[in-house]
Amino acid sequence: MTSLIAVDWGTSSLRAARIAADGTVLDQRSSARGILTVPAGGFPDVLQETCGDWLAEPSSLCLVSGMAGSRQGWREAPYCACPAGFAELARSLAWVEPQRIALVPGLSCESDGVPDVLRGEEVQVFGAIDLLQQRDGVYVLPGTHSKWVQVAQARVQSFATFMSGEVYALLRQHSILGRMMPAEDGPLAEDAFTQGVRYAQQSGGLLRSAFSARTLALFDRLPAPALASYLSGLVIGEELRQRSDAVDAVVLIGAPALTQRYALALRTLGCTSRTLGPEATWRGLWALARTLE
Amino acid sequence: MTSLIAVDWGTSSLRAARIAADGTVLDQRSSARGILTVPAGGFPDVLQETCGDWLAEPSSLCLVSGMAGSRQGWREAPYCACPAGFAELARSLAWVEPQRIALVPGLSCESDGVPDVLRGEEVQVFGAIDLLQQRDGVYVLPGTHSKWVQVAQARVQSFATFMSGEVYALLRQHSILGRMMPAEDGPLAEDAFTQGVRYAQQSGGLLRSAFSARTLALFDRLPAPALASYLSGLVIGEELRQRSDAVDAVVLIGAPALTQRYALALRTLGCTSRTLGPEATWRGLWALARTLE
Repeated sequence: MTSLIAVDWGTSSLRAARIAADGTVLDQRSSARGILTVPAGGFPDVLQETCGDWLAEPSSLCLVSGMAGSRQGWREAPYCACPAGFAELARSLAWVEPQRIALVPGLSCESDGVPDVLRGEEVQVFGAIDLLQQRDGVYVLPGTHSKWVQVAQARVQSFATFMSGEVYALLRQHSILGRMMPAEDGPLAEDAFTQGVRYAQQSGGLLRSAFSARTLALFDRLPAPALASYLSGLVIGEELRQRSDAVDAVVLIGAPALTQRYALALRTLGCTSRTLGPEATWRGLWALARTLE
Repeated sequence: MTSLIAVDWGTSSLRAARIAADGTVLDQRSSARGILTVPAGGFPDVLQETCGDWLAEPSSLCLVSGMAGSRQGWREAPYCACPAGFAELARSLAWVEPQRIALVPGLSCESDGVPDVLRGEEVQVFGAIDLLQQRDGVYVLPGTHSKWVQVAQARVQSFATFMSGEVYALLRQHSILGRMMPAEDGPLAEDAFTQGVRYAQQSGGLLRSAFSARTLALFDRLPAPALASYLSGLVIGEELRQRSDAVDAVVLIGAPALTQRYALALRTLGCTSRTLGPEATWRGLWALARTLE
Protein backbone atom coordinates (compact mmCIF):
# COMPACT_ATOMS: atom_id res chain seq x y z
CA MET A 1 0.00 0.00 0.00
CA THR A 2 1.11 3.58 -0.56
CA SER A 3 -0.94 4.99 2.27
CA LEU A 4 -3.79 4.02 4.57
CA ILE A 5 -6.97 5.98 5.07
CA ALA A 6 -8.01 5.09 8.60
CA VAL A 7 -11.58 5.90 9.63
CA ASP A 8 -13.09 5.67 13.11
CA TRP A 9 -16.82 6.00 12.39
CA GLY A 10 -18.85 6.03 15.56
CA THR A 11 -22.41 6.72 16.59
CA SER A 12 -22.04 10.47 16.95
CA SER A 13 -18.80 11.39 15.20
CA LEU A 14 -16.48 10.52 12.34
CA ARG A 15 -12.69 10.80 12.53
CA ALA A 16 -10.29 10.05 9.72
CA ALA A 17 -6.51 9.97 9.29
CA ARG A 18 -4.11 9.52 6.37
CA ILE A 19 -1.27 7.28 7.49
CA ALA A 20 2.03 6.66 5.67
CA ALA A 21 3.33 3.17 5.02
CA ASP A 22 5.74 3.54 7.97
CA GLY A 23 2.90 4.38 10.37
CA THR A 24 3.33 8.16 10.45
CA VAL A 25 0.02 10.00 10.77
CA LEU A 26 0.18 12.55 7.93
CA ASP A 27 -3.15 14.28 8.36
CA GLN A 28 -6.29 14.07 10.51
CA ARG A 29 -9.88 15.22 10.08
CA SER A 30 -13.06 14.91 12.09
CA SER A 31 -16.72 15.73 11.62
CA ALA A 32 -20.04 15.35 13.41
CA ARG A 33 -21.30 12.93 10.72
CA GLY A 34 -21.72 9.97 13.09
CA ILE A 35 -23.77 7.06 11.75
CA LEU A 36 -26.94 8.42 13.34
CA THR A 37 -26.78 11.40 10.94
CA VAL A 38 -26.31 9.29 7.80
CA PRO A 39 -29.41 8.23 5.83
CA ALA A 40 -29.65 4.67 4.46
CA GLY A 41 -27.34 4.36 1.47
CA GLY A 42 -25.61 7.63 2.26
CA PHE A 43 -22.37 6.22 3.66
CA PRO A 44 -20.27 6.32 0.43
CA ASP A 45 -21.20 9.98 -0.11
CA VAL A 46 -20.31 11.03 3.44
CA LEU A 47 -16.97 9.22 3.20
CA GLN A 48 -16.34 10.95 -0.14
CA GLU A 49 -17.17 14.36 1.35
CA THR A 50 -14.85 13.75 4.29
CA CYS A 51 -11.80 12.38 2.49
CA GLY A 52 -12.50 12.15 -1.25
CA ASP A 53 -9.12 13.75 -2.02
CA TRP A 54 -7.33 11.02 -0.08
CA LEU A 55 -9.42 8.29 -1.71
CA ALA A 56 -8.49 9.63 -5.17
CA GLU A 57 -4.88 8.57 -4.58
CA PRO A 58 -4.06 5.42 -6.54
CA SER A 59 -3.70 2.18 -4.59
CA SER A 60 -4.89 3.67 -1.33
CA LEU A 61 -6.57 1.37 1.18
CA CYS A 62 -9.38 2.52 3.47
CA LEU A 63 -10.23 0.68 6.72
CA VAL A 64 -13.29 1.76 8.70
CA SER A 65 -13.80 0.75 12.33
CA GLY A 66 -16.64 1.47 14.74
CA MET A 67 -20.41 1.49 14.47
CA ALA A 68 -20.32 1.99 10.69
CA GLY A 69 -19.93 -1.81 10.63
CA SER A 70 -23.06 -2.40 12.71
CA ARG A 71 -26.56 -3.33 11.64
CA GLN A 72 -27.47 0.38 11.83
CA GLY A 73 -24.41 1.40 9.81
CA TRP A 74 -23.06 1.14 6.28
CA ARG A 75 -23.25 -2.63 6.19
CA GLU A 76 -23.06 -5.21 8.96
CA ALA A 77 -19.61 -6.68 9.52
CA PRO A 78 -20.62 -9.64 11.74
CA TYR A 79 -18.91 -9.93 15.12
CA CYS A 80 -15.75 -12.01 15.17
CA ALA A 81 -15.86 -14.55 18.04
CA CYS A 82 -13.15 -14.52 20.74
CA PRO A 83 -10.44 -15.58 21.16
CA ALA A 84 -9.39 -13.40 18.23
CA GLY A 85 -6.21 -11.70 17.05
CA PHE A 86 -5.17 -9.63 14.08
CA ALA A 87 -5.42 -12.64 11.76
CA GLU A 88 -9.07 -13.40 12.60
CA LEU A 89 -9.96 -9.72 12.36
CA ALA A 90 -8.32 -9.39 8.94
CA ARG A 91 -10.08 -12.51 7.64
CA SER A 92 -13.45 -11.12 8.82
CA LEU A 93 -13.28 -7.72 7.15
CA ALA A 94 -16.44 -6.76 5.27
CA TRP A 95 -15.28 -5.34 1.92
CA VAL A 96 -17.64 -2.72 0.53
CA GLU A 97 -15.25 -2.09 -2.39
CA PRO A 98 -12.95 -5.06 -3.05
CA GLN A 99 -9.32 -4.45 -2.01
CA ARG A 100 -10.10 -0.77 -1.44
CA ILE A 101 -12.61 -0.10 1.35
CA ALA A 102 -13.39 -2.48 4.23
CA LEU A 103 -15.37 -2.39 7.46
CA VAL A 104 -13.64 -3.85 10.52
CA PRO A 105 -15.83 -6.30 12.47
CA GLY A 106 -16.40 -6.01 16.20
CA LEU A 107 -15.76 -8.86 18.63
CA SER A 108 -18.13 -11.11 20.56
CA CYS A 109 -17.57 -13.41 23.50
CA GLU A 110 -19.77 -15.32 25.92
CA SER A 111 -19.72 -16.07 29.63
CA ASP A 112 -22.34 -17.60 31.92
CA GLY A 113 -24.57 -18.07 28.88
CA VAL A 114 -24.67 -14.36 28.15
CA PRO A 115 -23.05 -12.82 25.07
CA ASP A 116 -21.06 -9.60 25.08
CA VAL A 117 -20.01 -7.39 22.19
CA LEU A 118 -17.73 -4.51 21.31
CA ARG A 119 -17.16 -2.61 18.09
CA GLY A 120 -14.36 -0.12 17.51
CA GLU A 121 -12.51 -0.89 20.74
CA GLU A 122 -10.89 -3.99 19.16
CA VAL A 123 -8.83 -1.72 16.92
CA GLN A 124 -7.71 0.39 19.89
CA VAL A 125 -6.66 -2.69 21.83
CA PHE A 126 -4.66 -4.12 18.92
CA GLY A 127 -3.09 -0.70 18.43
CA ALA A 128 -2.12 -0.57 22.10
CA ILE A 129 -0.65 -4.08 21.93
CA ASP A 130 1.45 -2.95 18.96
CA LEU A 131 2.51 0.36 20.52
CA LEU A 132 3.43 -1.08 23.91
CA GLN A 133 4.58 -4.47 22.65
CA GLN A 134 2.64 -5.91 25.58
CA ARG A 135 1.09 -9.18 24.40
CA ASP A 136 -0.58 -10.09 27.71
CA GLY A 137 -2.64 -8.10 30.19
CA VAL A 138 -5.84 -6.22 30.84
CA TYR A 139 -6.79 -3.30 28.62
CA VAL A 140 -9.50 -0.95 29.87
CA LEU A 141 -11.43 1.40 27.59
CA PRO A 142 -13.53 3.78 29.71
CA GLY A 143 -16.57 5.35 28.10
CA THR A 144 -20.34 5.32 27.79
CA HIS A 145 -19.94 1.55 27.86
CA SER A 146 -16.55 0.72 29.39
CA LYS A 147 -14.80 -2.39 28.10
CA TRP A 148 -12.41 -4.56 30.10
CA VAL A 149 -10.43 -6.64 27.63
CA GLN A 150 -8.34 -9.67 28.60
CA VAL A 151 -5.42 -10.20 26.23
CA ALA A 152 -3.11 -13.22 26.06
CA GLN A 153 -0.45 -13.79 23.40
CA ALA A 154 -1.67 -10.70 21.53
CA ARG A 155 -5.15 -12.18 21.15
CA VAL A 156 -8.34 -10.99 22.83
CA GLN A 157 -9.44 -13.89 25.03
CA SER A 158 -12.59 -12.31 26.48
CA PHE A 159 -13.99 -9.00 27.59
CA ALA A 160 -16.73 -7.46 29.74
CA THR A 161 -18.89 -4.37 29.29
CA PHE A 162 -19.84 -1.96 32.09
CA MET A 163 -22.50 0.69 31.45
CA SER A 164 -20.68 3.14 33.71
CA GLY A 165 -20.63 6.25 31.53
CA GLU A 166 -24.29 5.91 30.58
CA VAL A 167 -25.43 5.21 34.17
CA TYR A 168 -23.44 8.19 35.45
CA ALA A 169 -25.05 10.44 32.83
CA LEU A 170 -28.53 9.14 33.70
CA LEU A 171 -28.02 9.76 37.42
CA ARG A 172 -26.43 13.15 36.77
CA GLN A 173 -29.07 14.39 34.33
CA HIS A 174 -32.33 12.67 35.21
CA SER A 175 -32.27 11.44 38.83
CA ILE A 176 -33.10 13.03 42.16
CA LEU A 177 -29.32 13.24 42.75
CA GLY A 178 -28.81 15.52 39.77
CA ARG A 179 -31.36 17.99 41.14
CA MET A 180 -29.04 18.70 44.07
CA MET A 181 -26.07 19.54 41.82
CA PRO A 182 -25.23 22.81 40.07
CA ALA A 183 -26.28 22.77 36.40
CA GLU A 184 -22.69 23.03 35.15
CA ASP A 185 -19.90 20.66 36.15
CA GLY A 186 -16.87 22.49 37.48
CA PRO A 187 -13.39 20.94 37.51
CA LEU A 188 -13.07 17.56 39.22
CA ALA A 189 -13.18 17.83 43.04
CA GLU A 190 -10.50 15.20 43.69
CA ASP A 191 -11.20 14.66 47.39
CA ALA A 192 -14.90 14.07 46.78
CA PHE A 193 -14.10 11.80 43.82
CA THR A 194 -11.72 9.58 45.79
CA GLN A 195 -14.18 9.53 48.73
CA GLY A 196 -16.74 8.12 46.27
CA VAL A 197 -14.27 5.55 44.94
CA ARG A 198 -13.51 4.33 48.46
CA TYR A 199 -17.14 4.21 49.59
CA ALA A 200 -18.01 2.15 46.50
CA GLN A 201 -15.64 -0.59 47.70
CA GLN A 202 -17.48 -1.09 50.99
CA SER A 203 -21.12 -0.36 50.14
CA GLY A 204 -21.80 -3.56 48.21
CA GLY A 205 -23.28 -2.02 45.08
CA LEU A 206 -24.38 1.14 43.30
CA LEU A 207 -28.15 0.87 44.04
CA ARG A 208 -27.23 1.49 47.67
CA SER A 209 -24.13 3.68 47.43
CA ALA A 210 -25.73 6.17 45.02
CA PHE A 211 -28.19 7.33 47.69
CA SER A 212 -25.26 8.50 49.82
CA ALA A 213 -24.81 11.39 47.36
CA ARG A 214 -28.23 12.59 48.48
CA THR A 215 -27.84 12.08 52.21
CA LEU A 216 -24.32 13.53 52.45
CA ALA A 217 -25.66 16.68 50.78
CA LEU A 218 -28.79 16.68 52.95
CA PHE A 219 -26.65 16.60 56.11
CA ASP A 220 -24.25 19.26 54.74
CA ARG A 221 -21.31 16.86 54.69
CA LEU A 222 -20.59 17.39 50.99
CA PRO A 223 -20.97 20.79 49.29
CA ALA A 224 -23.23 20.87 46.22
CA PRO A 225 -20.38 21.75 43.79
CA ALA A 226 -18.54 18.54 44.82
CA LEU A 227 -21.51 16.18 44.41
CA ALA A 228 -21.02 15.40 40.73
CA SER A 229 -17.38 14.46 41.39
CA TYR A 230 -18.45 12.27 44.31
CA LEU A 231 -21.05 10.53 42.12
CA SER A 232 -18.46 10.00 39.39
CA GLY A 233 -16.20 8.40 42.01
CA LEU A 234 -19.04 6.13 43.15
CA VAL A 235 -19.73 4.92 39.60
CA ILE A 236 -16.11 4.41 38.53
CA GLY A 237 -15.34 2.92 41.95
CA GLU A 238 -18.23 0.48 41.50
CA GLU A 239 -16.81 -0.60 38.13
CA LEU A 240 -13.44 -1.23 39.78
CA ARG A 241 -15.11 -3.10 42.67
CA GLN A 242 -16.70 -5.46 40.17
CA ARG A 243 -13.28 -6.07 38.58
CA SER A 244 -11.44 -6.33 41.87
CA ASP A 245 -9.73 -9.49 40.59
CA ALA A 246 -7.97 -7.62 37.81
CA VAL A 247 -7.43 -3.95 38.57
CA ASP A 248 -3.67 -3.80 38.95
CA ALA A 249 -1.29 -2.86 36.12
CA VAL A 250 -4.03 -2.28 33.56
CA VAL A 251 -3.59 -0.24 30.39
CA LEU A 252 -6.15 2.57 30.06
CA ILE A 253 -7.06 3.67 26.53
CA GLY A 254 -9.20 6.70 25.77
CA ALA A 255 -9.68 10.45 25.99
CA PRO A 256 -7.53 12.05 28.72
CA ALA A 257 -10.47 13.57 30.66
CA LEU A 258 -11.74 10.07 31.35
CA THR A 259 -8.53 8.02 31.61
CA GLN A 260 -7.22 10.54 34.18
CA ARG A 261 -10.24 9.80 36.40
CA TYR A 262 -9.73 6.05 36.08
CA ALA A 263 -6.01 6.41 36.82
CA LEU A 264 -6.83 8.45 39.93
CA ALA A 265 -9.44 5.89 41.03
CA LEU A 266 -6.92 3.07 40.57
CA ARG A 267 -4.23 4.98 42.53
CA THR A 268 -6.80 5.49 45.32
CA LEU A 269 -7.07 1.69 45.53
CA GLY A 270 -3.30 1.28 45.46
CA CYS A 271 -3.15 0.08 41.85
CA THR A 272 -0.91 1.18 39.02
CA SER A 273 -1.91 1.80 35.41
CA ARG A 274 -0.56 3.08 32.12
CA THR A 275 -2.46 5.30 29.71
CA LEU A 276 -2.77 5.59 25.94
CA GLY A 277 -4.75 8.16 23.97
CA PRO A 278 -6.50 8.14 20.58
CA GLU A 279 -3.20 7.26 18.84
CA ALA A 280 -4.10 3.64 19.62
CA THR A 281 -6.90 3.74 17.03
CA TRP A 282 -4.64 4.87 14.18
CA ARG A 283 -1.95 2.41 15.18
CA GLY A 284 -4.46 -0.43 15.29
CA LEU A 285 -5.86 0.27 11.83
CA TRP A 286 -2.34 0.69 10.43
CA ALA A 287 -1.18 -2.58 11.99
CA LEU A 288 -4.27 -4.31 10.62
CA ALA A 289 -3.55 -2.92 7.15
CA ARG A 290 -0.02 -4.35 7.30
CA THR A 291 -1.38 -7.86 7.82
CA LEU A 292 -3.26 -7.52 4.51
CA GLU A 293 -0.13 -6.95 2.45
CA MET B 1 -59.91 10.75 70.77
CA THR B 2 -63.19 10.31 68.93
CA SER B 3 -61.63 9.62 65.56
CA LEU B 4 -58.29 9.96 63.78
CA ILE B 5 -57.74 11.71 60.48
CA ALA B 6 -54.75 9.90 59.01
CA VAL B 7 -52.95 11.58 56.12
CA ASP B 8 -50.20 10.10 53.95
CA TRP B 9 -48.88 13.17 52.13
CA GLY B 10 -46.21 12.26 49.63
CA THR B 11 -44.32 13.95 46.85
CA SER B 12 -46.90 13.33 44.13
CA SER B 13 -50.09 12.32 45.91
CA LEU B 14 -52.17 12.83 49.03
CA ARG B 15 -54.20 10.07 50.68
CA ALA B 16 -56.40 10.48 53.74
CA ALA B 17 -58.52 8.21 55.92
CA ARG B 18 -60.95 8.67 58.78
CA ILE B 19 -60.31 6.00 61.38
CA ALA B 20 -62.53 5.07 64.33
CA ALA B 21 -61.17 4.77 67.85
CA ASP B 22 -61.11 0.98 67.47
CA GLY B 23 -58.97 1.15 64.32
CA THR B 24 -61.74 0.66 61.75
CA VAL B 25 -61.12 2.63 58.56
CA LEU B 26 -64.41 4.50 58.06
CA ASP B 27 -63.67 6.42 54.91
CA GLN B 28 -60.79 7.02 52.45
CA ARG B 29 -59.94 9.77 49.99
CA SER B 30 -57.05 10.51 47.68
CA SER B 31 -55.98 13.34 45.42
CA ALA B 32 -53.09 14.36 43.18
CA ARG B 33 -52.18 17.23 45.53
CA GLY B 34 -48.72 15.91 46.40
CA ILE B 35 -46.38 18.39 48.06
CA LEU B 36 -44.85 19.37 44.73
CA THR B 37 -48.21 20.90 43.72
CA VAL B 38 -48.65 22.91 46.94
CA PRO B 39 -47.35 26.51 47.02
CA ALA B 40 -45.52 27.78 50.13
CA GLY B 41 -48.05 28.38 52.89
CA GLY B 42 -50.75 26.49 51.01
CA PHE B 43 -50.75 23.29 53.07
CA PRO B 44 -53.56 24.19 55.52
CA ASP B 45 -55.85 25.10 52.62
CA VAL B 46 -55.18 21.88 50.71
CA LEU B 47 -55.81 19.82 53.85
CA GLN B 48 -59.05 21.75 54.42
CA GLU B 49 -60.15 21.13 50.80
CA THR B 50 -59.41 17.43 51.13
CA CYS B 51 -60.99 16.67 54.50
CA GLY B 52 -62.41 19.87 56.01
CA ASP B 53 -65.63 18.05 56.91
CA TRP B 54 -63.67 15.50 58.95
CA LEU B 55 -61.60 18.23 60.62
CA ALA B 56 -64.79 20.04 61.67
CA GLU B 57 -65.59 17.18 64.02
CA PRO B 58 -64.89 18.12 67.64
CA SER B 59 -61.83 16.59 69.32
CA SER B 60 -60.56 14.97 66.13
CA LEU B 61 -56.81 14.41 65.82
CA CYS B 62 -54.97 14.64 62.49
CA LEU B 63 -51.60 12.94 61.95
CA VAL B 64 -49.73 13.58 58.70
CA SER B 65 -46.88 11.33 57.55
CA GLY B 66 -44.65 11.50 54.48
CA MET B 67 -42.87 14.30 52.65
CA ALA B 68 -45.23 16.96 54.05
CA GLY B 69 -42.88 16.86 57.03
CA SER B 70 -39.77 17.51 54.93
CA ARG B 71 -37.90 20.73 54.29
CA GLN B 72 -39.86 21.08 51.04
CA GLY B 73 -43.20 20.42 52.78
CA TRP B 74 -45.55 22.06 55.26
CA ARG B 75 -42.92 22.40 57.97
CA GLU B 76 -39.81 20.35 58.70
CA ALA B 77 -40.28 17.59 61.26
CA PRO B 78 -36.59 16.79 61.90
CA TYR B 79 -35.52 13.17 61.44
CA CYS B 80 -35.68 11.03 64.56
CA ALA B 81 -32.41 9.11 65.06
CA CYS B 82 -32.43 5.29 65.21
CA PRO B 83 -32.89 3.15 67.19
CA ALA B 84 -36.43 4.49 67.47
CA GLY B 85 -39.85 3.09 68.37
CA PHE B 86 -43.34 4.47 68.74
CA ALA B 87 -42.37 6.42 71.87
CA GLU B 88 -39.53 8.35 70.18
CA LEU B 89 -41.69 9.03 67.14
CA ALA B 90 -44.55 10.36 69.29
CA ARG B 91 -42.17 12.61 71.23
CA SER B 92 -40.78 14.03 67.98
CA LEU B 93 -44.07 15.00 66.32
CA ALA B 94 -44.08 18.51 64.86
CA TRP B 95 -47.39 20.09 65.93
CA VAL B 96 -48.69 22.64 63.43
CA GLU B 97 -51.86 23.09 65.52
CA PRO B 98 -51.39 22.07 69.16
CA GLN B 99 -53.11 18.79 70.12
CA ARG B 100 -54.92 18.81 66.74
CA ILE B 101 -52.63 18.48 63.70
CA ALA B 102 -49.11 17.03 63.76
CA LEU B 103 -46.47 16.04 61.23
CA VAL B 104 -44.76 12.68 61.78
CA PRO B 105 -40.95 12.86 61.56
CA GLY B 106 -38.90 10.55 59.37
CA LEU B 107 -36.04 8.43 60.68
CA SER B 108 -32.28 8.73 60.24
CA CYS B 109 -29.47 6.29 60.86
CA GLU B 110 -25.78 6.10 60.03
CA SER B 111 -23.37 3.38 58.93
CA ASP B 112 -19.79 3.56 57.66
CA GLY B 113 -19.89 7.31 58.26
CA VAL B 114 -22.75 7.80 55.81
CA PRO B 115 -26.23 8.88 56.91
CA ASP B 116 -29.45 7.40 55.58
CA VAL B 117 -33.01 8.70 55.83
CA LEU B 118 -36.61 7.69 55.29
CA ARG B 119 -39.87 9.58 55.66
CA GLY B 120 -43.32 7.98 55.56
CA GLU B 121 -42.06 4.41 55.60
CA GLU B 122 -41.59 4.53 59.41
CA VAL B 123 -45.38 4.67 59.82
CA GLN B 124 -45.85 1.67 57.51
CA VAL B 125 -43.28 -0.36 59.42
CA PHE B 126 -44.83 0.43 62.80
CA GLY B 127 -48.25 -0.40 61.34
CA ALA B 128 -46.94 -3.73 60.09
CA ILE B 129 -45.39 -4.52 63.47
CA ASP B 130 -48.77 -3.84 65.07
CA LEU B 131 -50.77 -5.81 62.49
CA LEU B 132 -48.52 -8.85 62.49
CA GLN B 133 -47.44 -8.62 66.11
CA GLN B 134 -43.95 -9.34 64.83
CA ARG B 135 -41.53 -7.33 66.96
CA ASP B 136 -38.33 -8.56 65.28
CA GLY B 137 -37.36 -9.01 61.64
CA VAL B 138 -36.65 -7.33 58.33
CA TYR B 139 -39.31 -5.16 56.71
CA VAL B 140 -38.86 -4.28 53.04
CA LEU B 141 -40.66 -1.37 51.38
CA PRO B 142 -40.09 -1.53 47.60
CA GLY B 143 -40.42 1.66 45.63
CA THR B 144 -38.62 4.47 43.85
CA HIS B 145 -36.21 4.26 46.76
CA SER B 146 -36.59 0.85 48.42
CA LYS B 147 -36.06 0.69 52.17
CA TRP B 148 -34.78 -2.34 54.09
CA VAL B 149 -35.67 -1.83 57.74
CA GLN B 150 -34.16 -3.88 60.57
CA VAL B 151 -36.53 -4.16 63.54
CA ALA B 152 -35.75 -5.53 67.01
CA GLN B 153 -38.11 -5.40 69.99
CA ALA B 154 -40.55 -3.29 67.96
CA ARG B 155 -37.94 -0.59 67.40
CA VAL B 156 -36.23 0.33 64.15
CA GLN B 157 -32.54 -0.40 64.71
CA SER B 158 -31.26 0.67 61.29
CA PHE B 159 -32.23 0.70 57.63
CA ALA B 160 -30.76 0.98 54.15
CA THR B 161 -31.97 2.70 50.98
CA PHE B 162 -31.69 1.24 47.47
CA MET B 163 -32.45 3.45 44.45
CA SER B 164 -33.90 0.48 42.57
CA GLY B 165 -37.18 1.94 41.33
CA GLU B 166 -35.55 5.12 40.14
CA VAL B 167 -32.63 3.32 38.44
CA TYR B 168 -35.04 0.94 36.70
CA ALA B 169 -37.10 3.88 35.43
CA LEU B 170 -33.96 5.67 34.18
CA LEU B 171 -32.74 2.59 32.32
CA ARG B 172 -36.22 1.88 30.96
CA GLN B 173 -36.96 5.42 29.79
CA HIS B 174 -33.65 7.06 28.98
CA SER B 175 -30.97 4.43 28.26
CA ILE B 176 -29.92 2.51 25.17
CA LEU B 177 -31.71 -0.50 26.70
CA GLY B 178 -35.08 1.25 26.64
CA ARG B 179 -34.74 1.91 22.92
CA MET B 180 -34.92 -1.84 22.26
CA MET B 181 -38.18 -2.25 24.20
CA PRO B 182 -41.76 -1.65 23.04
CA ALA B 183 -43.07 1.76 24.19
CA GLU B 184 -45.75 0.20 26.40
CA ASP B 185 -45.04 -2.38 29.11
CA GLY B 186 -47.16 -5.48 28.72
CA PRO B 187 -47.89 -7.84 31.64
CA LEU B 188 -44.86 -9.20 33.50
CA ALA B 189 -43.03 -11.91 31.52
CA GLU B 190 -42.27 -14.14 34.50
CA ASP B 191 -39.63 -16.33 32.86
CA ALA B 192 -37.63 -13.34 31.67
CA PHE B 193 -38.03 -11.67 35.07
CA THR B 194 -36.71 -14.66 37.01
CA GLN B 195 -33.91 -15.10 34.47
CA GLY B 196 -32.88 -11.52 35.29
CA VAL B 197 -33.08 -12.17 39.04
CA ARG B 198 -30.82 -15.20 38.72
CA TYR B 199 -28.28 -13.54 36.43
CA ALA B 200 -28.01 -10.62 38.88
CA GLN B 201 -26.74 -13.04 41.56
CA GLN B 202 -23.75 -14.17 39.48
CA SER B 203 -22.81 -11.08 37.47
CA GLY B 204 -21.27 -9.10 40.33
CA GLY B 205 -23.18 -5.87 39.85
CA LEU B 206 -25.67 -3.90 37.80
CA LEU B 207 -23.18 -1.87 35.72
CA ARG B 208 -22.21 -5.17 34.09
CA SER B 209 -25.44 -7.17 34.21
CA ALA B 210 -27.56 -4.40 32.66
CA PHE B 211 -25.71 -4.70 29.35
CA SER B 212 -26.94 -8.29 29.04
CA ALA B 213 -30.41 -6.89 28.28
CA ARG B 214 -28.89 -5.42 25.14
CA THR B 215 -26.82 -8.38 24.02
CA LEU B 216 -29.51 -11.02 24.68
CA ALA B 217 -31.83 -8.97 22.44
CA LEU B 218 -29.09 -8.42 19.85
CA PHE B 219 -28.53 -12.19 19.59
CA ASP B 220 -32.29 -12.91 19.51
CA ARG B 221 -32.20 -14.80 22.79
CA LEU B 222 -34.83 -12.62 24.44
CA PRO B 223 -37.82 -11.21 22.54
CA ALA B 224 -38.29 -7.44 22.70
CA PRO B 225 -41.61 -7.64 24.63
CA ALA B 226 -39.84 -9.56 27.45
CA LEU B 227 -36.90 -7.16 27.81
CA ALA B 228 -38.51 -4.78 30.31
CA SER B 229 -39.41 -7.73 32.56
CA TYR B 230 -35.85 -9.06 32.29
CA LEU B 231 -34.44 -5.64 33.20
CA SER B 232 -36.83 -5.41 36.16
CA GLY B 233 -35.54 -8.81 37.31
CA LEU B 234 -31.94 -7.62 36.98
CA VAL B 235 -32.56 -4.53 39.11
CA ILE B 236 -34.65 -6.20 41.83
CA GLY B 237 -32.27 -9.18 41.76
CA GLU B 238 -29.34 -6.79 42.25
CA GLU B 239 -31.05 -5.26 45.29
CA LEU B 240 -31.51 -8.77 46.74
CA ARG B 241 -27.89 -9.66 45.93
CA GLN B 242 -26.74 -6.66 47.97
CA ARG B 243 -28.90 -7.83 50.89
CA SER B 244 -27.99 -11.49 50.55
CA ASP B 245 -27.35 -11.63 54.32
CA ALA B 246 -31.00 -10.88 55.11
CA VAL B 247 -33.38 -11.94 52.35
CA ASP B 248 -35.24 -14.81 53.99
CA ALA B 249 -38.55 -14.41 55.81
CA VAL B 250 -38.86 -10.68 55.16
CA VAL B 251 -42.13 -8.74 55.31
CA LEU B 252 -42.90 -6.84 52.12
CA ILE B 253 -45.00 -3.69 52.45
CA GLY B 254 -46.36 -1.76 49.48
CA ALA B 255 -48.54 -1.71 46.40
CA PRO B 256 -49.36 -5.23 45.11
CA ALA B 257 -47.87 -4.65 41.62
CA LEU B 258 -44.46 -4.17 43.19
CA THR B 259 -44.59 -6.50 46.21
CA GLN B 260 -45.66 -9.33 43.89
CA ARG B 261 -42.45 -8.85 41.88
CA TYR B 262 -40.32 -8.86 45.03
CA ALA B 263 -42.10 -11.96 46.32
CA LEU B 264 -41.47 -13.73 43.01
CA ALA B 265 -37.81 -12.65 43.04
CA LEU B 266 -37.43 -13.96 46.60
CA ARG B 267 -39.08 -17.29 45.69
CA THR B 268 -36.67 -17.57 42.74
CA LEU B 269 -33.83 -17.41 45.27
CA GLY B 270 -35.52 -19.95 47.55
CA CYS B 271 -36.65 -17.40 50.13
CA THR B 272 -40.02 -16.90 51.75
CA SER B 273 -41.79 -13.62 52.42
CA ARG B 274 -45.07 -12.19 53.67
CA THR B 275 -46.85 -9.20 52.17
CA LEU B 276 -48.85 -6.26 53.50
CA GLY B 277 -50.57 -3.54 51.50
CA PRO B 278 -51.45 0.11 52.17
CA GLU B 279 -53.43 -0.89 55.28
CA ALA B 280 -50.08 -0.73 57.10
CA THR B 281 -50.05 3.07 56.78
CA TRP B 282 -53.46 3.55 58.40
CA ARG B 283 -52.66 1.06 61.13
CA GLY B 284 -49.34 2.80 61.84
CA LEU B 285 -50.90 6.24 62.19
CA TRP B 286 -53.72 4.83 64.31
CA ALA B 287 -51.28 3.01 66.61
CA LEU B 288 -49.22 6.18 66.90
CA ALA B 289 -52.35 8.17 67.83
CA ARG B 290 -53.11 5.68 70.61
CA THR B 291 -49.74 6.35 72.25
CA LEU B 292 -50.74 10.04 72.53
CA GLU B 293 -53.80 9.41 74.63
